[in-house]
Amino acid sequence: MGGAVQWLEAGASGVARVTLSNPGKLNAIDIGMWRELRALFKRLQSLNADAAPRAVIVCGAGGQFASGGDIVEFANFRFDEEALHDFHENTVAPALQSLLDCDIPMLAQIDGACIGGGLEIAACCDIRVCGESSRFGAPIAKLGFPMAPGELERLSKVFAATVLREMLLEARLFHAHEALRVGAVHAVVADADVASTTLQRAERIAALSPQAARINKRTLRQIAAGGPTATERRAHFGYADSAEHREGIAAFIDKRPPRFQRA
Amino acid sequence: MGGAVQWLEAGASGVARVTLSNPGKLNAIDIGMWRELRALFKRLQSLNADAAPRAVIVCGAGGQFASGGDIVEFANFRFDEEALHDFHENTVAPALQSLLDCDIPMLAQIDGACIGGGLEIAACCDIRVCGESSRFGAPIAKLGFPMAPGELERLSKVFAATVLREMLLEARLFHAHEALRVGAVHAVVADADVASTTLQRAERIAALSPQAARINKRTLRQIAAGGPTATERRAHFGYADSAEHREGIAAFIDKRPPRFQRA
Amino acid sequence: MGGAVQWLEAGASGVARVTLSNPGKLNAIDIGMWRELRALFKRLQSLNADAAPRAVIVCGAGGQFASGGDIVEFANFRFDEEALHDFHENTVAPALQSLLDCDIPMLAQIDGACIGGGLEIAACCDIRVCGESSRFGAPIAKLGFPMAPGELERLSKVFAATVLREMLLEARLFHAHEALRVGAVHAVVADADVASTTLQRAERIAALSPQAARINKRTLRQIAAGGPTATERRAHFGYADSAEHREGIAAFIDKRPPRFQRA
Repeated sequence: MGGAVQWLEAGASGVARVTLSNPGKLNAIDIGMWRELRALFKRLQSLNADAAPRAVIVCGAGGQFASGGDIVEFANFRFDEEALHDFHENTVAPALQSLLDCDIPMLAQIDGACIGGGLEIAACCDIRVCGESSRFGAPIAKLGFPMAPGELERLSKVFAATVLREMLLEARLFHAHEALRVGAVHAVVADADVASTTLQRAERIAALSPQAARINKRTLRQIAAGGPTATERRAHFGYADSAEHREGIAAFIDKRPPRFQRA
Repeated sequence: MGGAVQWLEAGASGVARVTLSNPGKLNAIDIGMWRELRALFKRLQSLNADAAPRAVIVCGAGGQFASGGDIVEFANFRFDEEALHDFHENTVAPALQSLLDCDIPMLAQIDGACIGGGLEIAACCDIRVCGESSRFGAPIAKLGFPMAPGELERLSKVFAATVLREMLLEARLFHAHEALRVGAVHAVVADADVASTTLQRAERIAALSPQAARINKRTLRQIAAGGPTATERRAHFGYADSAEHREGIAAFIDKRPPRFQRA
Repeated sequence: MGGAVQWLEAGASGVARVTLSNPGKLNAIDIGMWRELRALFKRLQSLNADAAPRAVIVCGAGGQFASGGDIVEFANFRFDEEALHDFHENTVAPALQSLLDCDIPMLAQIDGACIGGGLEIAACCDIRVCGESSRFGAPIAKLGFPMAPGELERLSKVFAATVLREMLLEARLFHAHEALRVGAVHAVVADADVASTTLQRAERIAALSPQAARINKRTLRQIAAGGPTATERRAHFGYADSAEHREGIAAFIDKRPPRFQRA
């Protein structure tokens, strides 16, 4: 039947949830799931700020994040150059891009395996929390193929090139504390605490200024693309007279917590 | 009254000192201080190599490095787009740039809080030494505003983008050992030893070839700007017949310490 | 007489070995050795994939990796601008470039000192394994000279700019665990185990798909150069119908180890 991308609308806290699910296959990301991810994050980015969640947790069903592609689909397209190109460039790459283009803060709740396509999705999130037994990698050199350029470019924003060489050339899986040492995850907690820690961090983000978060994510994207243009630098300061800016400064002066309320 | 940037001329060792001071405000950097910093480091860079200090320590008065902007000034300009743009692009950015354009080695002696504008100044130094109780961050999402593009670009030379996402989206303060783990500081020492350790490292630098330091800083700036041009690569080797180069090689061959004396 | 670059052809495992040797000088890299390295790696890259080794270990003779340039040669060229430029840009830079342009996986087996030119060579390898007593640095500020632009650019792919400032401005040597903390080496092992650990990792790489390794190294080089062009992205997928790709996928489906045999 194939896997699915499940969506849970944000409640009062403003934290929504995306669940990768492909039972019995460690949530391998199949073609349908890549398409669902693309549509979902495009929709999220198109939402009015008031209607949008303030943070999105991306997780996997059944105690695993996600592991690679769906191998049963491989015979259908991997050995044909056109079809292979189409899969990586027109299915996977645009899905990852839709996550990167979404200015809502995203947290990866990483239980268990975070491999291949799962690793690529986690690398598009802003915050990565994993458990002691989590494993990271893309051991595709065992499968006789290299990583597609667009996917490797994405990983190179989260892993240093020195680490990617080790990961790909040795087909090496990294343990949680190795991932922390090389800066690829933000926190390692007990396996039982991954969900609660991620939720806590998401709620913390959701209580802060959504406007600040959106603009910060946009600026970081501009920097990654070579630095903001003069026009972008000028446009940046459009927030000057906004309600959130006034509330944040007022709360600080009044020595009270700010209230960045949803409309 | 406002804060001040205090300057202590280099003595025999060649180590000068800049002290950020804004009593009762954790040395918050006000507009006057940003202007003083800009003028100071422009002057330092314009000095003849013989007259220039060989290393500059940047520190804060009263056991704190520096913490953010001066909130009492905020109401004057933050809610007006023109004035806000002018503050970030024409006051803060050129001050930071004057530090970056100065080829004298700079060390940040980080006692206590290193927040917001203070963090930005520290990020323009070459070496950062902090104490066990130091804290790093820019929790402006609580104040309802994002980081200005030029300032975020500067921080992204010292903090990985993955770390900046955590710092800004969560308004998170980093402890000293977290700052060390992510590579943002070079050493964490006991609070009581921050000043002496920084001075020791400054004196070590001051005893080495000032010419080598200046050219290395210039080359690193060229690399950060996309790599030295062909002309810059050619000009690099102008040091070939210099006294410092001859002294360094001679001392090595003679198995004695080099003497890179001031004129 | 000068040093030499020794070459040991790959045996059945597919792992070849390059040994830097300059007895009594900690394997200092002299001009002849830079030229040999350039010729050697150009030859390796030109080999047909079937004839090429699957991994190359770079090591030093006599329990040291390599330490700087050969000081007795320095008086011949360092104080003449033309000759100095020629040495760095036409001797050292092309040698390092020939390592970078070679798509065979390379591992640095780092015993003891890894300094100056030795550090630059190690930085061109994909994997760096060192011993507890290994030391890393380029303390040339003691010798009165800066690092050449091309060499500093190379190091900046392996060491963060923050670390290079510390290394160069302080003429600081890094211990093995500091090198690990800053991500410059992939593993620190007991001194007695450096050779065996490096060999083990080389053999692991040699048993994986050579095609995947070559393409991954090429893509990482394209990313470092600003990202693959549209033509390069398209050409990437030429491996679709290859024997190694088919074998890797087939082995995975059959739940058996893949056999990427040499012709």
